[in-house]
Amino acid sequence: MTVSIEDIRTAAERIKPHIHRTPVMTNENLNQKAGAQVFMKCENLQKVGAFKFRGASNAVWALIDEEAARGVVTHSSGNHAQALALAANMRGIPAYIVMPSNAPQVKKNAVAGYGGRVTFCEPTLEARESTMESIRQSTGASVVHPYDNERVIAGQGTAALEFLEDVPDLDVIIAPVGGGGLLSGTSIAATETKKGIRVIAAEPEMADDAFRSLQAGEIIPSINPKTVADGLLTSLGALTFPIIKERVEQIVTVSETGIIEAMKFVWERAKIVIEPSAATVIAVLWEKKIDLAGLKVGVILSGGNVDLEKLPWQA
Amino acid sequence: MTVSIEDIRTAAERIKPHIHRTPVMTNENLNQKAGAQVFMKCENLQKVGAFKFRGASNAVWALIDEEAARGVVTHSSGNHAQALALAANMRGIPAYIVMPSNAPQVKKNAVAGYGGRVTFCEPTLEARESTMESIRQSTGASVVHPYDNERVIAGQGTAALEFLEDVPDLDVIIAPVGGGGLLSGTSIAATETKKGIRVIAAEPEMADDAFRSLQAGEIIPSINPKTVADGLLTSLGALTFPIIKERVEQIVTVSETGIIEAMKFVWERAKIVIEPSAATVIAVLWEKKIDLAGLKVGVILSGGNVDLEKLPWQA
Repeated sequence: MTVSIEDIRTAAERIKPHIHRTPVMTNENLNQKAGAQVFMKCENLQKVGAFKFRGASNAVWALIDEEAARGVVTHSSGNHAQALALAANMRGIPAYIVMPSNAPQVKKNAVAGYGGRVTFCEPTLEARESTMESIRQSTGASVVHPYDNERVIAGQGTAALEFLEDVPDLDVIIAPVGGGGLLSGTSIAATETKKGIRVIAAEPEMADDAFRSLQAGEIIPSINPKTVADGLLTSLGALTFPIIKERVEQIVTVSETGIIEAMKFVWERAKIVIEPSAATVIAVLWEKKIDLAGLKVGVILSGGNVDLEKLPWQA
Repeated sequence: MTVSIEDIRTAAERIKPHIHRTPVMTNENLNQKAGAQVFMKCENLQKVGAFKFRGASNAVWALIDEEAARGVVTHSSGNHAQALALAANMRGIPAYIVMPSNAPQVKKNAVAGYGGRVTFCEPTLEARESTMESIRQSTGASVVHPYDNERVIAGQGTAALEFLEDVPDLDVIIAPVGGGGLLSGTSIAATETKKGIRVIAAEPEMADDAFRSLQAGEIIPSINPKTVADGLLTSLGALTFPIIKERVEQIVTVSETGIIEAMKFVWERAKIVIEPSAATVIAVLWEKKIDLAGLKVGVILSGGNVDLEKLPWQA
């Protein structure tokens, strides 16, 4: 089972009434610094502040009424939890969110604020999965994995579809990679829409499991990575890995300093708030591990959820 | 002499090739918190990060070639200096900028970065004016005052013109007031374009000279005000005051806490970077000194230039 361009087109039609069609921004300072013509697809301006709302919306609205009535369930403490909570709320169905008891209060509040029904568990993967399974059994809710789920992948691919509608002559498209939901959806949408387009991924050096997985030809799990890009800590999945292997030209790793500088540059010059995970794609433009000179480069700014009290460039 | 709606329309045509047509953004969280339908005209996304680029561009491009060749001159250490430097640079003419020697290094660099020719002087108004006058005499450059200048006022009015093209049924439009360039231009553009529209100004309580000027019926100068909204420290001018007196319904003052909370809210929820001066218009929606319930309210986010190392909500 995999995801086709038709799945992505269907997803785009399905979620259109619910999501924001995010703008594409350009910035002269960025172009000069990058030596390329850069187009930014602003998923930080998406609902809940991240592209995750696309996949969650597609998963929620694809359910038939009878399934939907029983709700959806996931375990996540990140943007996916908020996205699924809001998407379910908009359809008027319950979202059961399993979070580790040590998740930051701000994230608990955010999920609850979108109407998610939060269950806390011990902060281990086993506890999260067993808690989720017991909720699934008692409620009949549909499980929505944050990335290893066809409908989620198809939903994430809709950002690239819009991007190429707005800027059809992109030479390259760069997306960050964590679990690979955005990257796999992007790579299908881009390569099936435009012949010869190059799809490149950005990954923190300090969490380079996807880079190593592509080199090894098998999934190498991410073990306790430490990076400021806290949206990119997860490992590739059984669905996302083969898609990425087939369609992504290469994964470019970027330094922590590069990520932080890129984030600050975008805040200062483009006047938009992006999170460190989103800044990885800008860092690719600068660290010059690949030559993009003179090209039309599309980057997906994946999200804008940051704690404004703790900015990474401050001591 | 004053400024007509035709002057603003002429300015709009003149500067169109040079400026960004900034987007209008909405945010569901903001609507809920304000109890109104709020539209944000994002001049923080304008070139140089502020509406000031409109007025400066109009002043620069309105010059006949012979005048233009001699350049433009102003004294300013704020957004106007950067705006004039870039506008002149784009026309290929010199911009002489007089700055006090104690201006922050980051502002000196910004002006120089846009190609401005900076002259430093003692940090007194007298020194600034005499330095500017001697440059004017030796170069023949045209003086471009930051706000008390018809072409500048007409240029600033173009933001409201675009705003009402995009959202024709606004009930109210709110702009911040410092020297009054943006407010006077906005008030002419709005009231001449749409009958019955209400124009309201936002001003920090701690720099409420415009509020007191309207009450007194004469310009009351701003004396050494202390507010986080550092773009709003100046006093009304001989040109801006009568326009504001005639066309602005009222000036609403807002607290320092309100400004900082509003700024943080917009960064967190709308994911865009605005400066404290711009946040005053959002604070008006919250401090509930006027009733805007259920109305379509347009606010002009005047700029986004902030020092990311020193954010006002941090100790």
